[in-house]
Amino acid sequence: MSAIRTACEVSPCTAKLISLLVFSRIDHIGIAVADLDAAIAVHEGTYGMRVVHRETLEEQGVEAVLFDVGENHVELLRPLGDDTPVGRFLAKRGPGLHHVAYQVHDISAALSRLREDGVRMIDVAPRTGIRGSRVAFLHPTASGSVLTELVEPATVHR
Amino acid sequence: MSAIRTACEVSPCTAKLISLLVFSRIDHIGIAVADLDAAIAVHEGTYGMRVVHRETLEEQGVEAVLFDVGENHVELLRPLGDDTPVGRFLAKRGPGLHHVAYQVHDISAALSRLREDGVRMIDVAPRTGIRGSRVAFLHPTASGSVLTELVEPATVHR
Repeated sequence: MSAIRTACEVSPCTAKLISLLVFSRIDHIGIAVADLDAAIAVHEGTYGMRVVHRETLEEQGVEAVLFDVGENHVELLRPLGDDTPVGRFLAKRGPGLHHVAYQVHDISAALSRLREDGVRMIDVAPRTGIRGSRVAFLHPTASGSVLTELVEPATVHR
Repeated sequence: MSAIRTACEVSPCTAKLISLLVFSRIDHIGIAVADLDAAIAVHEGTYGMRVVHRETLEEQGVEAVLFDVGENHVELLRPLGDDTPVGRFLAKRGPGLHHVAYQVHDISAALSRLREDGVRMIDVAPRTGIRGSRVAFLHPTASGSVLTELVEPATVHR
């Protein structure tokens, strides 16, 4: 049971306060891939996962493919060019785990709270992510070298 | 809603067949850390996550600290020495995302199915993981360079 749902059983007021930052789940892991078709074959063929969405995010310089894993997701990221964040990641480290994204209830409130705490962010305001979500990345210096994203989904996909 | 639960609504027989391999959720992400106290401070202090378990796994050469994130977990891994898998990972790549673990209902059945499909494994039989779970790692050549673990928990922690 998530902290938010637990809090809701306490009182709506407490729930609202707690849900400003609380991560309700791992929304997804992002995986940088050089060969998108081969990576889809692993996730569909070997793991039996289902592709639920495919989108080109020009602003982030990636083609993204999303799979369901229960209430979580796997996001494959193919760079649109070498001079993109994922393109540079691939050149430096090769294919592999790229980031983790935690789901939040209210990303604007979460960012305000992080700002108040002096946490360094890549995005000081939410921007549009995959499937119309609102997302923001923490700066790696604030997240122990793990590229970390906050996601407020447009719709909670189950 | 997970595939297993969806399947259970279809028929118990179908549920059993589907659950042999289906990944019911992301069980956890594993993060390699050099400074465990600093990483705990990020996850507790910045993210507001709760430490739920701490264990030294001599066989895997790590001290592990587990946090709840809704029904998922974050696992911090501090190597017990330089000549351990996580010690070598840190020396080569530095701190960061180390592996992803998917939860399965029946790990023995899942491994049988993977063997039948000719999927290369690091572990051909389950071994004991954190909190008495049964775990097995796929070989990186079979998982697109993402170190991937299957986990059958001793108890489903919610």
